[in-house]
Amino acid sequence: MLELSRRMMLIAAAATIASTATSQVTLATASDPLPSWREGDAKKRIVTFVTETVTLGGANYVEPADRIAVFDNDGTLWSEKPFYFQAFFALDRIKTLAPSHPEWNDKEPFRSILAGDVESLAAQGEHAILEVIMETHAGLSVDAFKEIVSDWLVDAKHPTLGRNFDSLVFQPMLELLTYLRANGYETWIVSGGGIEFIRTFAERAYGIPPQQVIGSSVVTEFQIVDGKPELMRLPKIDFIDDKAGKPVGINKFIGKRPVFAAGNSDGDMQMLQWTTAGDGPRFGLIVHHTDDAREFSYDRQSSVGRLDKALDLAPSEGWLLVDMKLDWGKVFP
Amino acid sequence: MLELSRRMMLIAAAATIASTATSQVTLATASDPLPSWREGDAKKRIVTFVTETVTLGGANYVEPADRIAVFDNDGTLWSEKPFYFQAFFALDRIKTLAPSHPEWNDKEPFRSILAGDVESLAAQGEHAILEVIMETHAGLSVDAFKEIVSDWLVDAKHPTLGRNFDSLVFQPMLELLTYLRANGYETWIVSGGGIEFIRTFAERAYGIPPQQVIGSSVVTEFQIVDGKPELMRLPKIDFIDDKAGKPVGINKFIGKRPVFAAGNSDGDMQMLQWTTAGDGPRFGLIVHHTDDAREFSYDRQSSVGRLDKALDLAPSEGWLLVDMKLDWGKVFP
Repeated sequence: MLELSRRMMLIAAAATIASTATSQVTLATASDPLPSWREGDAKKRIVTFVTETVTLGGANYVEPADRIAVFDNDGTLWSEKPFYFQAFFALDRIKTLAPSHPEWNDKEPFRSILAGDVESLAAQGEHAILEVIMETHAGLSVDAFKEIVSDWLVDAKHPTLGRNFDSLVFQPMLELLTYLRANGYETWIVSGGGIEFIRTFAERAYGIPPQQVIGSSVVTEFQIVDGKPELMRLPKIDFIDDKAGKPVGINKFIGKRPVFAAGNSDGDMQMLQWTTAGDGPRFGLIVHHTDDAREFSYDRQSSVGRLDKALDLAPSEGWLLVDMKLDWGKVFP
Repeated sequence: MLELSRRMMLIAAAATIASTATSQVTLATASDPLPSWREGDAKKRIVTFVTETVTLGGANYVEPADRIAVFDNDGTLWSEKPFYFQAFFALDRIKTLAPSHPEWNDKEPFRSILAGDVESLAAQGEHAILEVIMETHAGLSVDAFKEIVSDWLVDAKHPTLGRNFDSLVFQPMLELLTYLRANGYETWIVSGGGIEFIRTFAERAYGIPPQQVIGSSVVTEFQIVDGKPELMRLPKIDFIDDKAGKPVGINKFIGKRPVFAAGNSDGDMQMLQWTTAGDGPRFGLIVHHTDDAREFSYDRQSSVGRLDKALDLAPSEGWLLVDMKLDWGKVFP
């Protein structure tokens, strides 16, 4: 009985979203839910899959409760060049904190950051990056961290595109998210980026609420501070939601195998494998960055968002390779 | 725009559930959403709170997106005596596995379990219990584990009440879950028990889908087994979702502070503190087991579900103490 009512709720919800879809994405029309996708194989395959999985009585019908769609964030829902946007946050934060840390002027990796020497920073390797993350992402409460990130997003600008970071989301992917939700899919983010970082803007930017964001995390601890309960962020890694960690994170947070997965790099390969190895209809999608004019062009040789092994696997696994340059009529909103 | 559509969706969903509520819980009527709750202060406080938080324009209105309600499981949604039901699963599992482990006849804690000597088992302490959990909950895939638990739930019976474990849920709490959902609340389980264990029956028993269950977990690992991606459960604790772990789990999975929290033991104290310390209207509820005739009666002296510190805190914190014997007209469905 409860299950029945849940299904009715989802159908009602889908109908409501469908009826209000035109007010959400001004370009969407009843006849074309993906107006920024050029006509072609990619768009056709997506529409066919979604239509079949919601066609009651069809061979590929998927129960509403199982309509789970997962999306990588960096490079899949927004840009990730010249490097992950969260790294810009970390570097800006070091600069903000520097006045109260005079010792950083003689201490790596902080010295390089304050001197604007990104190359030297990159050469210092993983340990240096971890030190920067802990200095900028820990030692404060969850609430305080969220506020700092929110404030940063208001002010910070992308170094070459000159726009706010949270405006560098991909219009075709926004339409895909809306289209899936209109068909009863729950849309989730599964990112190697920080879970609390993404949660500060995911609802506004993507329509994805905090409880549908999975990401990397630091350990948090419950403390009573001045008689008030607080959750404090400790300088210790809790979970890395990348590569083989993605299916682990999906199982931990969602507890079922998705039907639809979208990524853009080798970090998404295991998530795509886990998703599309399930029984029944499954969809794997890879955003291939091929558009140097409107965004960026990179794959096998890139240090950020490298797409190499998953690119090799795509044809045999049946994953859709989306060619940004050819398949997308528009990149940013 | 997306936020607006999400709210409309929630309102539509609430309306749908409300209109189908009578078919879900046969006793429910339009005038009384909580028929198994006797008239009195407890019922009145719950109804007043829910009504106020959904009254648009009222001082205690809560946005649909913030309507998060969290429930402990053992002792709050179902019984937990003589000990946690998951422990019965573990002990039964040891007996099932015993034929292929002849060495267990001479090895503790297995010897005691196979001899039915629960007292001796309990005396062996935490290490023995952990060994039993790892032997019965790890070393297999997530999918295989779920199947074993599901099968066990079909056959196993409570030792004194003689009913299937998943029928020993509390009717008044089922009504409360339905009532909250009918008012746009998302209902979550936040349990010290195993997340995958609870997920096997939570949707059927409580109408709570897998992605709204938070619990304790073992580490899982993504592996390619015979060319097929699998998630394997390793004999290593990942997270203990109890006491101070509960607000940590809530923040990790939900990313926002609940408005409503229900528990029954000191293991729920920090969850109640975290929830009710938030700004605006908050509700803390403790199920007090006072009914030896229909269920069990225990609090400060119980080794399972001890309610001592939280019982002391309840009056000053304003948490509602539900007296099972007085406040519930019915205990089980």
